[in-house]
Amino acid sequence: MIKITLPDGSIRNYVKPISVLDIAKDISEGLARNVISAQFNEKTVEVSTIIKNDGNLKLYTWKDVNGKKAFWHSSSHVLAQALQELYPGVKLTIGPAIENGFYYDVDLGENFISEKDLKNIEDRMLQIAREKHDFKIRSVSKTEAIKKYSKEKNQYKIELIENLIDEEITFCDHSSFTDLCRGGHIPNTGMIKAVKLLNIAGAYWRGDENNKQLTRIYGISFPKQKELKEYLNILEEAKKRDHRKLGKQLELFTFSKKVGQGLPLWLPNGAALRSRLENFLKKAQMKAGYEMVVTPHIGQKELYVTSGHYEKYGEDSFQPIETPKIDEEFLLKPMNCPHHCEIYNFKPFSYKELPKRYAEFGSVYRYEQSGELHGLTRVRGFTQDDAHIFCTPDQLDEEFKNVIDLVLYVFKSLGFDNFTAQVSLRDPKKPEKYIGSVENWDKAEKAIINAAEDKGLDFVVETGEAAFYGPKLDFMVKDALGRSWQLGTIQVDYNLPERFDLTYKGNDNKNHRPVMIHRAPFGSMERFIAILLEHTCGNFPIWLIPKQTVILTISENYEKYAQKVLNLLENNEIRALIDDRSETMGKKIRDAEVKKIPFMIIVGEQEEKTNTISVRRHGGENLGSLTIEAFKELIEVDISKTFEQFKINN
Amino acid sequence: MIKITLPDGSIRNYVKPISVLDIAKDISEGLARNVISAQFNEKTVEVSTIIKNDGNLKLYTWKDVNGKKAFWHSSSHVLAQALQELYPGVKLTIGPAIENGFYYDVDLGENFISEKDLKNIEDRMLQIAREKHDFKIRSVSKTEAIKKYSKEKNQYKIELIENLIDEEITFCDHSSFTDLCRGGHIPNTGMIKAVKLLNIAGAYWRGDENNKQLTRIYGISFPKQKELKEYLNILEEAKKRDHRKLGKQLELFTFSKKVGQGLPLWLPNGAALRSRLENFLKKAQMKAGYEMVVTPHIGQKELYVTSGHYEKYGEDSFQPIETPKIDEEFLLKPMNCPHHCEIYNFKPFSYKELPKRYAEFGSVYRYEQSGELHGLTRVRGFTQDDAHIFCTPDQLDEEFKNVIDLVLYVFKSLGFDNFTAQVSLRDPKKPEKYIGSVENWDKAEKAIINAAEDKGLDFVVETGEAAFYGPKLDFMVKDALGRSWQLGTIQVDYNLPERFDLTYKGNDNKNHRPVMIHRAPFGSMERFIAILLEHTCGNFPIWLIPKQTVILTISENYEKYAQKVLNLLENNEIRALIDDRSETMGKKIRDAEVKKIPFMIIVGEQEEKTNTISVRRHGGENLGSLTIEAFKELIEVDISKTFEQFKINN
Repeated sequence: MIKITLPDGSIRNYVKPISVLDIAKDISEGLARNVISAQFNEKTVEVSTIIKNDGNLKLYTWKDVNGKKAFWHSSSHVLAQALQELYPGVKLTIGPAIENGFYYDVDLGENFISEKDLKNIEDRMLQIAREKHDFKIRSVSKTEAIKKYSKEKNQYKIELIENLIDEEITFCDHSSFTDLCRGGHIPNTGMIKAVKLLNIAGAYWRGDENNKQLTRIYGISFPKQKELKEYLNILEEAKKRDHRKLGKQLELFTFSKKVGQGLPLWLPNGAALRSRLENFLKKAQMKAGYEMVVTPHIGQKELYVTSGHYEKYGEDSFQPIETPKIDEEFLLKPMNCPHHCEIYNFKPFSYKELPKRYAEFGSVYRYEQSGELHGLTRVRGFTQDDAHIFCTPDQLDEEFKNVIDLVLYVFKSLGFDNFTAQVSLRDPKKPEKYIGSVENWDKAEKAIINAAEDKGLDFVVETGEAAFYGPKLDFMVKDALGRSWQLGTIQVDYNLPERFDLTYKGNDNKNHRPVMIHRAPFGSMERFIAILLEHTCGNFPIWLIPKQTVILTISENYEKYAQKVLNLLENNEIRALIDDRSETMGKKIRDAEVKKIPFMIIVGEQEEKTNTISVRRHGGENLGSLTIEAFKELIEVDISKTFEQFKINN
Repeated sequence: MIKITLPDGSIRNYVKPISVLDIAKDISEGLARNVISAQFNEKTVEVSTIIKNDGNLKLYTWKDVNGKKAFWHSSSHVLAQALQELYPGVKLTIGPAIENGFYYDVDLGENFISEKDLKNIEDRMLQIAREKHDFKIRSVSKTEAIKKYSKEKNQYKIELIENLIDEEITFCDHSSFTDLCRGGHIPNTGMIKAVKLLNIAGAYWRGDENNKQLTRIYGISFPKQKELKEYLNILEEAKKRDHRKLGKQLELFTFSKKVGQGLPLWLPNGAALRSRLENFLKKAQMKAGYEMVVTPHIGQKELYVTSGHYEKYGEDSFQPIETPKIDEEFLLKPMNCPHHCEIYNFKPFSYKELPKRYAEFGSVYRYEQSGELHGLTRVRGFTQDDAHIFCTPDQLDEEFKNVIDLVLYVFKSLGFDNFTAQVSLRDPKKPEKYIGSVENWDKAEKAIINAAEDKGLDFVVETGEAAFYGPKLDFMVKDALGRSWQLGTIQVDYNLPERFDLTYKGNDNKNHRPVMIHRAPFGSMERFIAILLEHTCGNFPIWLIPKQTVILTISENYEKYAQKVLNLLENNEIRALIDDRSETMGKKIRDAEVKKIPFMIIVGEQEEKTNTISVRRHGGENLGSLTIEAFKELIEVDISKTFEQFKINN
C-alpha cells in the first residue's frame, strides 16, 4: 500500500507504484490536463515519475511559480535542440528558467547569431513543440556522462559534470535531443503553444570575466498564444513607463558619475514632487498624532553595537568612518530606529503619555553592488518615510489599526486601488528563534490578524516568516500593468526596546518595556516615486504634479497677458509656467505633452480681448474658452476627487 | 623733521623726537585723555614711547579692540603684582588679554586660592590702580633676563626667555613690579577704575597635559564702574539665556552619548520649530525664484578631487568611507556646492534660462575636536540653508541685490533689527593669490559694493579679506544683549564653475562660464536657532513657536469643554495643547511659564457657561474673558506685526 498525502492534508492510497500523472487523473481529469510539474517529498519530480513510496505530493500547474519554472526550463531544452540543429557544433552550457522566461548560454564557435536570426530559431522551436515529444529523465554514470560530452568536445558540460556526485547525475531526453539536467519538466513539448526569443546578450562562462564570453539567448514561452500577446503588450508598455526614462524626460532626477552610482540627485521638478508627497504624509501623520523628529545621518559605533546592527555590518557594507581620535568611529546610518530609541530615552515617560509616535523622513545609506543598482528602485542612498511608535502592549491593537488606516489612505490617495497583504507570524514549533515573551507574541500576532480582518484586508498568513524580533504585515500593490510591488510595511519589535533599555512607568508605578512598531507606508521615497511613475506613466494625480499648467503664447505680443494670467493662477495657488519661446504652437504643445503637463493654456488676441483662456487637456481634449475662476474650479474638482473617496480615521 | 602719517592720511611734522602722548595732545586734549595704546609702523608701542622716525601712527582708545587689549593686558600685570604680594613665592607664567578680559596662569606652589579669596585680590588690585603707577617698558639682555628669574626660581619664565631672540627682550615695570613683556600698555594703572575676578580654573603649562597644572585666574576690568556693572548684568542674563539650558527646558533638542558628541537629536518641539523656519525661508525663496533640490549626504572621492576639497581633507577630518570595491571611496559631504554643480551640469542651459537658483536644506558633516564642541553653535553635523545661484556676469549685480533683500527680510522677520555687514575684497597688490579675470573681479566687487550701498547697509570694506575664488559679504547681527553674531554670508565664486566646467550658451551662440553665488541667510539651522534662543530667551515670535497656547483645566469636570476649545483652535490653525493633569492651577501656570508658551487659556465653570475662554499672557498679563474668535484675532495681529514691517522685493 502506498500512502500519498496532498497539500490539503487529504490522503490517497494506491496498491502499486503509480505515475504522478495517474495520481493527477485520479484526482480529476481537469487537473491531469493541466499538471505541468510536481514535487514529491520536497524534491522536484517529473509528471511521468513513478511513485513507489509513501510521501507528500504537490502538483503544479501554469498558475504556480514552480509550474511556470518547469514550463520555461523545458522550453530552454527546446531552444537548445533548435540551436544544435541550426548551428551544428554549437556547445551548450547552462539554460535555466528565470523570473520571466528562460535563457540558454551557448558557445557558437565560429558562428554568430543576430536579432534577425531569432525568428528562424523560434519557428524551429514551435515545430518541435507541435511534434509533442515526451520529456524523459534517466540516470547516467559520471563516466558515461563525460563520455558523451567528450565526444562533442564540450568542456563546459564536462566541467559541470566533474563537480557533480556520481549516482546523482541525470540526462533528459526529448525527440533526438539529450541534455544534462536535474529535472522538473512538462510532460511533453506539445504544451508549448507560443514562443518568443527576446534578445541576445554576452555572458561570461560562470559569470567570470576571465572566462570565455558566451552568447546568451533570452526567451519566453506560454501555453496559449493569447498569453504571449498580453505579455508582449505589457513589456512594450513597461518600456514606455520605465521610470528611468520618464525621470529624465520629466526632469525629476539624475545620476552623476562623480557623485557616485546609486545616489540620485533630485532636480527641481523631482524635489517638488518629493516634497509634496512628504507634506501630504506629514499632514496625515500629524492628524494621526505623530510628531516629527530630526536625527543625524551618522551614529557612533557604540549606537550600532547596542542596536545589534554592528555585528551584521560586514565587508559588503559602507565601511566605518574613522576620525582623528582612535576608538571614535562612526557609521553611515543604515536605518533610523536606533536614533529614535535614543530620542525616546531623552526623558522618562509614564503610561499616560504613551503612545509616542516619532516620524522622520530619514535618509539612510546601504552599499549595493554596482551590478544590482537600478534607477530609483535599487539605490545606495534613500529616504524612508519612517516612524516608530512606542506604546504599551495594551495599546498595540489600536495602534496597529491606526497604522493600517494611514497606509490605506496613502495608497488610495495615490491611485493604487488594488492591494493585498501578508501577515508574517512566528513558527510556534521553534520558540528558540524568537525574542520576547510568549504572552507578548500572542498578543501581537492576535493584534495584527484582528487589525487586518477588522480593516477588511485581502491577506495571507505565512507562519515562520516573522522577524526574530516580532511579527509583521507587508503590503503589496498592483500597478496599472498588473505588476505587484511590495510597498509599506508594519513591524512589531520587542528587541530594540530591550537592547536600548526603554521603559515607561506603569500605573503600578513600576518600570515596564514599551512595544515598538516600525512602519513606512511608502517604504522609501525613491522606490515609491519609481513605482508611482511607472504606474501613472508620469501622469501624476493633479495635486501632486510639479506643474499643473503651462501657458503657451501665440506670439510675443501676448507675453504681457500671459504674465497676467500666470500671476492670477499663482494667486490661486495653481502651479503654472509660461512657454514664450519663439516656437510654433504645434511644437509648444508637443513639448508640453512630453512633459505630461495636465493642462495647456493658450493665449492670443481672442483671449486677451475677452479676458479668458483657451484650455487643452493633456492628451488632446479641447476644453474651450474659460475664465480663470472656471479653470480654478476645474482643477479643484480634480483634486478633491482624489481625496474625497477616502477619509482618514483619526 | 619727523613726518607722522595718521590713519585718515593727514600728516603732522615734528622738529624733534616726540612721545606718542604728545602727538595725541597735539591732535586734541580729549584724545590725549583717552589714548590707551598705539601702533607705529604696524608695531605695538606704548603711549610713552618716543617717536624718532617718519612713519604711520594709529592711536587707540577704549573703543578700539586694540585699546581694550592693552587695557586688559595691563590689568593682568596689576593682577600679577597683587598675587605676588599676597602669595609670596608665587611663580608667574603668562597673562594675556582675551576677547573679554584677561587671565594669569600662576604656579602657587604650596598655596591655594579659592573663589572666596578673589575679593581680597581685587581690593589690592584697585589699590594699586588708584596709586597711578606708570607702565614703563625697557630692553634687557637675555643674560640679565634669565638672571632675574633664576633668582626667583621661575623655570617657566626662563623657558619663555630661552625661546626669545636676544636684543628683542623687554621688561615692563610699574610700581615695584616687573614682568617679562612685549609691550602694549595703558599709560598708568590709574585708568583702571573697576576690576572683577571672574573665576579660577586649572590649566596645564603650555596647554600640554604632561606638564604641571597651574592655576588660572580670569578677570575683567573697565575704565568706568558703570561699564563693569553692565557687563556683569549681561553675563548674568547670558547665563539665563544659554541655549543649551533653554533647549533642554523647552525640549527642543538633546545629545546622546551613543549617537555621538556634536550630533544633535531634534525632539518634536525642536523639529517643529526647525520645520517652521525652513518653511518660512522656502516660501520666501520660492517667491524669489529659487528651486529646491535634494542631494545625498555622501559623494565619491572624485567629486571632491574635482571641487578641490579633497586636497584639504586632512587627518583632522572624518576619514573617507571605504567600500568593498577598491578605488571606490566616499566622503561624508562637508558642503553642498559640488553636488549642486553636478545638478547644473544635468543639461545645457542658454543665457535666457539663467539665473538658475538651486536651494537645499543640506546637512553637512565636519569633524571638530570634542573640546571645541559647544551646544548647537559648534557641532559636527549641521544643516545649511544653502543655495547656489548660477548666473551670467551681467546678472550678478541684480542677483546680489535680491539676495541682500532676502537676507534682510529673514533677519527682520525674526526680530534681529540691528545688523552690520562686511565686504571682503581682494588685495589688488597680490593678483597671484586669486583666480578669475581682473575684469570679472572688478565687476563682482563693484556689484557687491553697489548692492550694499543701494540697500543702505551699514558696512565696512576689508581689502585682502576675499576668498581666493571671489569677494564676499558677511552679515553680523546684534542680539538682545548687544552681542554680535556672524550669520548670513553671500559669496561670489569663479573657481567651481571652472573646476566643474560649467557653461551656458551666450547670445553669441558660444559657451561661457556662469558666475556662482553661494549664500545662506541663516548660516546653519543649528547655529541660527541657538542664537535665536539666546536672543529671544526662548520667547520666540508667535508665528514660530511650537505651541502657541495651552489650555489649563480648573478641574476634570471641564475636560470636555477643554477638548471643544482645542478643536476650535485647531480648526483656526492655532497650535494648542491641553494640560489636564490633576495639579493645582498655580503649578500648571508655573509649568506653562517655564515652557514659555505665550498664551494660557483657563477653562472652568464660568467659561463653559458663557462659551468663552480666560486668557493670560506669558509673563502674567491678564487678558480677561474672550471668545475664540477674539482670541484668534489677537494671535493673528501678533503674527502680522512681524511680517508687515518688512516686505520682500521679488
